[in-house]
Amino acid sequence: MKGKTIGILTSGGDAPGMNATIRAIVLAAHKFDHQCIGFMHGYNGLIHQQHKTLVPDDVANVIHKGGTILKSARCPEMLTEQGITQAVQTLTQLEIDVLIVIGGDGSFNGMLAIEKLWQGQLIGLPGTIDNDIDGTDFTIGFSTAINTAIEAIDKIRDTADAFDRVFVIELMGRQSGHIAFNVGIACGAEQIISFENFQQLQKQQKLNAIIEDISAHRSDAHKSYLIVLAENLWPGGAHELANQLKQQANIDCGLCILGHIQRGGSPVAKDRILATRLGVAAVQALNDGKTGVMLGELKNDIVEVPLSLAVCHTKHVADNLVSAHENILALAAQHHKTVL
Amino acid sequence: MKGKTIGILTSGGDAPGMNATIRAIVLAAHKFDHQCIGFMHGYNGLIHQQHKTLVPDDVANVIHKGGTILKSARCPEMLTEQGITQAVQTLTQLEIDVLIVIGGDGSFNGMLAIEKLWQGQLIGLPGTIDNDIDGTDFTIGFSTAINTAIEAIDKIRDTADAFDRVFVIELMGRQSGHIAFNVGIACGAEQIISFENFQQLQKQQKLNAIIEDISAHRSDAHKSYLIVLAENLWPGGAHELANQLKQQANIDCGLCILGHIQRGGSPVAKDRILATRLGVAAVQALNDGKTGVMLGELKNDIVEVPLSLAVCHTKHVADNLVSAHENILALAAQHHKTVL
Amino acid sequence: MKGKTIGILTSGGDAPGMNATIRAIVLAAHKFDHQCIGFMHGYNGLIHQQHKTLVPDDVANVIHKGGTILKSARCPEMLTEQGITQAVQTLTQLEIDVLIVIGGDGSFNGMLAIEKLWQGQLIGLPGTIDNDIDGTDFTIGFSTAINTAIEAIDKIRDTADAFDRVFVIELMGRQSGHIAFNVGIACGAEQIISFENFQQLQKQQKLNAIIEDISAHRSDAHKSYLIVLAENLWPGGAHELANQLKQQANIDCGLCILGHIQRGGSPVAKDRILATRLGVAAVQALNDGKTGVMLGELKNDIVEVPLSLAVCHTKHVADNLVSAHENILALAAQHHKTVL
Amino acid sequence: MKGKTIGILTSGGDAPGMNATIRAIVLAAHKFDHQCIGFMHGYNGLIHQQHKTLVPDDVANVIHKGGTILKSARCPEMLTEQGITQAVQTLTQLEIDVLIVIGGDGSFNGMLAIEKLWQGQLIGLPGTIDNDIDGTDFTIGFSTAINTAIEAIDKIRDTADAFDRVFVIELMGRQSGHIAFNVGIACGAEQIISFENFQQLQKQQKLNAIIEDISAHRSDAHKSYLIVLAENLWPGGAHELANQLKQQANIDCGLCILGHIQRGGSPVAKDRILATRLGVAAVQALNDGKTGVMLGELKNDIVEVPLSLAVCHTKHVADNLVSAHENILALAAQHHKTVL
Repeated sequence: MKGKTIGILTSGGDAPGMNATIRAIVLAAHKFDHQCIGFMHGYNGLIHQQHKTLVPDDVANVIHKGGTILKSARCPEMLTEQGITQAVQTLTQLEIDVLIVIGGDGSFNGMLAIEKLWQGQLIGLPGTIDNDIDGTDFTIGFSTAINTAIEAIDKIRDTADAFDRVFVIELMGRQSGHIAFNVGIACGAEQIISFENFQQLQKQQKLNAIIEDISAHRSDAHKSYLIVLAENLWPGGAHELANQLKQQANIDCGLCILGHIQRGGSPVAKDRILATRLGVAAVQALNDGKTGVMLGELKNDIVEVPLSLAVCHTKHVADNLVSAHENILALAAQHHKTVL
Repeated sequence: MKGKTIGILTSGGDAPGMNATIRAIVLAAHKFDHQCIGFMHGYNGLIHQQHKTLVPDDVANVIHKGGTILKSARCPEMLTEQGITQAVQTLTQLEIDVLIVIGGDGSFNGMLAIEKLWQGQLIGLPGTIDNDIDGTDFTIGFSTAINTAIEAIDKIRDTADAFDRVFVIELMGRQSGHIAFNVGIACGAEQIISFENFQQLQKQQKLNAIIEDISAHRSDAHKSYLIVLAENLWPGGAHELANQLKQQANIDCGLCILGHIQRGGSPVAKDRILATRLGVAAVQALNDGKTGVMLGELKNDIVEVPLSLAVCHTKHVADNLVSAHENILALAAQHHKTVL
Repeated sequence: MKGKTIGILTSGGDAPGMNATIRAIVLAAHKFDHQCIGFMHGYNGLIHQQHKTLVPDDVANVIHKGGTILKSARCPEMLTEQGITQAVQTLTQLEIDVLIVIGGDGSFNGMLAIEKLWQGQLIGLPGTIDNDIDGTDFTIGFSTAINTAIEAIDKIRDTADAFDRVFVIELMGRQSGHIAFNVGIACGAEQIISFENFQQLQKQQKLNAIIEDISAHRSDAHKSYLIVLAENLWPGGAHELANQLKQQANIDCGLCILGHIQRGGSPVAKDRILATRLGVAAVQALNDGKTGVMLGELKNDIVEVPLSLAVCHTKHVADNLVSAHENILALAAQHHKTVL
Repeated sequence: MKGKTIGILTSGGDAPGMNATIRAIVLAAHKFDHQCIGFMHGYNGLIHQQHKTLVPDDVANVIHKGGTILKSARCPEMLTEQGITQAVQTLTQLEIDVLIVIGGDGSFNGMLAIEKLWQGQLIGLPGTIDNDIDGTDFTIGFSTAINTAIEAIDKIRDTADAFDRVFVIELMGRQSGHIAFNVGIACGAEQIISFENFQQLQKQQKLNAIIEDISAHRSDAHKSYLIVLAENLWPGGAHELANQLKQQANIDCGLCILGHIQRGGSPVAKDRILATRLGVAAVQALNDGKTGVMLGELKNDIVEVPLSLAVCHTKHVADNLVSAHENILALAAQHHKTVL
């Protein structure tokens, strides 16, 4: 088999494990006598021809590093015809046989646009902390992000406990509740407000329920109380929720918007292993002539799904996770019941 | 539904997430109006009637704590008829309806012994860092153990890199390679010697291959080289492997036997969530009258398997993990090839 | 020597190492046959008689825990004559011989108020993450807080690097720059805006300098750029600074207000050791009949200073730290120079 | 002032913060228009002319990295006249004005040997985890090493607590007890066996005391018991101590030889700040024409001491640390007393 020329780029929000993915691709490509070219700054490097050769030595000690050695960036030009044309010209000029993109749904839409104008192989790998990609149970970076969040919230619990205080903690996740729900359960949060269990129309009912729950919680003992909130969900965000609790029930809340620390850091084992499996699988898929696919992990198996399906945003938090939460956290109601 | 009396114990080697499991059981039991009694020091507490009531306040802030609030211990008496009889007497005297045991295969064998003499419900939950339980893809504690190990080995990599040095690192896992293989991949170890890819008869061939690989590795550049070894596999252990590399090829190895730090520490998100799901599922199973079963996670679903199947030791490291490793780490051979 | 009765309370913002301090006091008190009573929720427990006996078993496994087992709270009543009188009544009724308070300047002012009405011994220990107490180089909790902050900012650096992005990061410290300056240096921040090197009147000059520095920084290469800001300093805070950079120079900043995670977590070695030394020294001081003093660490020695001096707020970040920062970070100016 | 040419090397055991030191030197040198050359693999790079230019970009993102970008190595050749002569020849040929060495006592002895044959400036910076250098309260790397150790031992405490078990934990430190004593206190170890409180002649008395203490400890309650041991102290090491406890009193000990993980990892704040202060101070010292000195931190001030004094090995663990330990840990004796 003649070796191919593989282009690699990381795009969209960076995610821990992107470097481990690049490493696996480069090492597996080396084994099969392919050549690798890395494009810098996401699609910008493709459009503006910023690239460099990637050989095993370039990835010798990056498996544990956060960020991405190829850098990332948003790329508005990829939403224009001109940008897409330029990207395709680069692929043609450099005689790229395969383009592997590590990123999220925006990145995959870029590939779908290229697909219409270019004959090469296109392979996507899911790299985003938000876990909002269909066709894979886990995206690269998600497991690290939730662990970063729980370590931070464990610290907030210390302070909340010392002061018997209520905290509102806003987590990332874009339009999905994967981070919020998993983190909320793992931290033993007294409330999780996420896309799975809240709609904006119910805002006042939810406020009433929280106020009652806090009050019940405190009737028998002083206690800390953590409210984990998915971003882009509560009108006005965590700030506004805290304000409303203050105004409507004189509850003084601490506030924590965890922000970008969720994106960085050394990847946890799960993300390094997932990255390695998917990176190797991408090389096997290109060996097999596959194109237009994303590789993911479904029920522990490595699978191929059409790129067009990966961006549907139909994957939700597992029902049994939502119900597990309900079964352990209806405490206030219970306490109440006991009292009556 | 009339509430039941639930006995809980943790047995065998302690594992991070045992406390999160106890918490989930106690909270879910509370919701369904069951009572919980915790037995101390594993089966010893059952035999010698050391126990205490467990209410939600007892588990209010333990989800993130390593070890086990019920303590654990080996219990040789459970291998005797007298011990088993005493355990059953305690269950009868205290009018226990359900016994939930969190532990590994030894703990489950204890349940199988009790099952012959006692009419109550018996439910097992897989809690061991070794991941050597059938019927569940992950045991509670495994994910934390591999993360603890990779954080330690990342530090060893720093020193190994500074000195271009070879290290032999021995990891736990009893008779299985789950820890060694996952950690080896996640650390980018240059060699993984595990039950999946090594038999003792091949010792000298393996030694030759390692010596050749180290030599090839160093031909083009000074480099660090990490050998991850499963315990109970190499004759004489890591010590002996290091000695043999020294004697046969004058390779000076650093040595690290990671040991008990793999057992402790705050559980990672995966273990807390798994513990919570399984703890709630145990209460649902006892509500449904189930007995003689272990609850586990297979392909992301919570499942019930007969206890007798859980202890078969037929679960191996996934083939695609073994092959992923082969596809990225045949570097020395590759380099060699390039040179020739 | 007849044993004394020691009252202990933690007050003000909680700080990692408070538990290690309580432990050291209780263990050393036990050695000298003193009795310990812990007051809950800071001065509130003293005023409202919420207390519990503390024996060695109560502190058996708390040296590594964040928060405070005695809880803390603000206590507005201690600013009233009535509150102070009630506090003194409790001390008298319970026949307390010595009151040890672990906290910051507000807590010490409470002791100074009590001193006027009570004959017992009063001993203060500096426990606050802000390090804004005179008479001690380090307060208990400070070292942990700066390590928590640098771990978070290392993660932000990953993302900032991946995107060549500017971040504004606001840190705690009340009216002092100890946290901001030490963290800024330890993270290699490109800008530190702290009480030592910024006055509000210079706001526009500072903005201009930052804008020029960012521009110079980016002239030769895309790069990340971290601005570390002390809280309570920039008019409008980090939010406003980010807005101004956007408005005045179209610089798009990420924003991180680190907040309460700086208060929690397991104390680092320095805080555990400092807490142990100060806790033991407090018992030795009370053995010696001392009162009206705070124990601190100055130039590595344990010293006693009058409580009234501890609250003067004259301790600043060391000059050589400020100048070290200047000597490594005038890079943009340098680059500029090189170019001209 | 005309810029100088500065040679930099890291030597001896690597220590976290070496990279932060190199960074500070290179950035401060840049500010003062000096040039930097890094020698690889410690003195070997000097002898065999392996070196590279160091500019600010080379140290752009290394402040938080363990290991050393200049690599380190033992260098037996520096103990020979020929090696020293070759090293001096390199310094002369490359027209080095100043040699800065980051390392421990062996490294400084190398400088003292060079001093006899070379007219350039020689400046040492203390970089070793062992803290066994005179003239500085802290060496670069020490604070990180003790934090790494306490995080590991906190995990062992979890397991020890779960099993009420005795553990023997051996720590690094060469011929000094700085690591053992500080870690022992910070972990609340029940026993610290270190150079300050143990001589080999007293071995049997110590064994008897430990056995009695463990027994007293367990008389009232099952409990964990941690023995922290300095390396190179107990005849036969931790292994032998564990054997003796088993043989003489049937005490079954867990064993942990922490080993090289103490050397690696991202430096804690203290080490990054110390490294930055010392690196900048080194450049200021060379600006001032100083030679034959080591820069250190004494009582929080940056000081210069003659290199010959730095290697005297007269610095011991502070008396008040030793006595603090005695005042909190005579518990068993106390319990005993209470019982009698």
